[in-house]
Amino acid sequence: MKAVILLSGGLDSATILAMACEQGRECHALSIVYGQRHEIEMAAAKRVAAAYGVEEHVIENLDLRIFGASALTADIDVPKDSVDAPGIPITYVPARNTIFLALALGFAEAREAHEIWLGVNAVDYSGYPDCRPEFLSAFQQVILQGTRSGIEHGEPRIVAPLVSLSKADIIRKGISLGVDYSMTHSCYDPSPDGFACGHCDSCILRRRGFEEAGVPDPTHYAHH
Amino acid sequence: MKAVILLSGGLDSATILAMACEQGRECHALSIVYGQRHEIEMAAAKRVAAAYGVEEHVIENLDLRIFGASALTADIDVPKDSVDAPGIPITYVPARNTIFLALALGFAEAREAHEIWLGVNAVDYSGYPDCRPEFLSAFQQVILQGTRSGIEHGEPRIVAPLVSLSKADIIRKGISLGVDYSMTHSCYDPSPDGFACGHCDSCILRRRGFEEAGVPDPTHYAHH
Repeated sequence: MKAVILLSGGLDSATILAMACEQGRECHALSIVYGQRHEIEMAAAKRVAAAYGVEEHVIENLDLRIFGASALTADIDVPKDSVDAPGIPITYVPARNTIFLALALGFAEAREAHEIWLGVNAVDYSGYPDCRPEFLSAFQQVILQGTRSGIEHGEPRIVAPLVSLSKADIIRKGISLGVDYSMTHSCYDPSPDGFACGHCDSCILRRRGFEEAGVPDPTHYAHH
Repeated sequence: MKAVILLSGGLDSATILAMACEQGRECHALSIVYGQRHEIEMAAAKRVAAAYGVEEHVIENLDLRIFGASALTADIDVPKDSVDAPGIPITYVPARNTIFLALALGFAEAREAHEIWLGVNAVDYSGYPDCRPEFLSAFQQVILQGTRSGIEHGEPRIVAPLVSLSKADIIRKGISLGVDYSMTHSCYDPSPDGFACGHCDSCILRRRGFEEAGVPDPTHYAHH
């Protein structure tokens, strides 16, 4: 069965790609370059896609810096050691997952894929609204009402197998499937040579996940 | 009140921009270059944006040709004299309006705009699923569930004032507001020097609209 996999090169998307392969899907990976840190993230996405021998790996370029308003797309510092602060953090990129799912939908419909897999997670996450099941259900309705394949076949279906898992559970799942997490990149603010900062929300959630899972953390952290 | 206006440079989007200006909106125009016919469409969009003195006109580049599967994004001939054929035509671009609305949503949220205006129409149209009110309602739910501004303020709101008007009504409305339709471009298959083909769905719907409205058609057609 054909599936489009949204692949960022991070821990979560590597895990869903491994799951989709294990479940026998023909995987069409889509990565979206949208702002900062292109090269490090895309290098990770390419490593992961190659490791799993995907059918194709398409990279869409999109400049969300012209909208700005996020620490990931504008000249705003990435907050450090603040993962437990309440509210939606400044790393929230306006409508990012809506834009990503919309592009995945166009790709899936063009390829006649039955599924769109994405690695969103609403447990150990930063409180982004577009990582929640309520968002995914609403987007599924857009697919059913707004596309030819949705109207004619009730597809593609959104598959988000990590949405209610903890980060530790995700890592345990990936390890059981043989995922090599040293290929992946999660940090929002890496050094120019690609070392993880260790202090942004993404690094902290990742590090805590490895600790809780009792799995050695393969991440290369920068020394401050 | 701030509003994002999706501006293609066509007849419909010029009309909604005129309406938004008349209603006192601060207009932030967004045009999306996504495949073929960049220059002619973008030239029209720039003319229209300039004529209405928009607050800003942002152009987002996106390559939907890497997905293909449409006469507007792949090497497939644009059908001629077939506007009355049943079904969804091959000019349907997979998930196009979902992608456009997703980008408009990111832009609107970044600018703290209250509204997103788009010129979709479900009367004199080509049967595209993503021009129908059911699609717009579903996308509004995505906004409410998937964005910070949706959760916190119930915004931005989708405004589609043409959705249930005939093409003739749209033209009458625009003429009453002084829209100069000679600035606009609708043809799916223009000649290299920008003349309209007169036979694609978009040309025929436009031409019929001017006839029904009893308004001289300012379009420059190619002579075959």
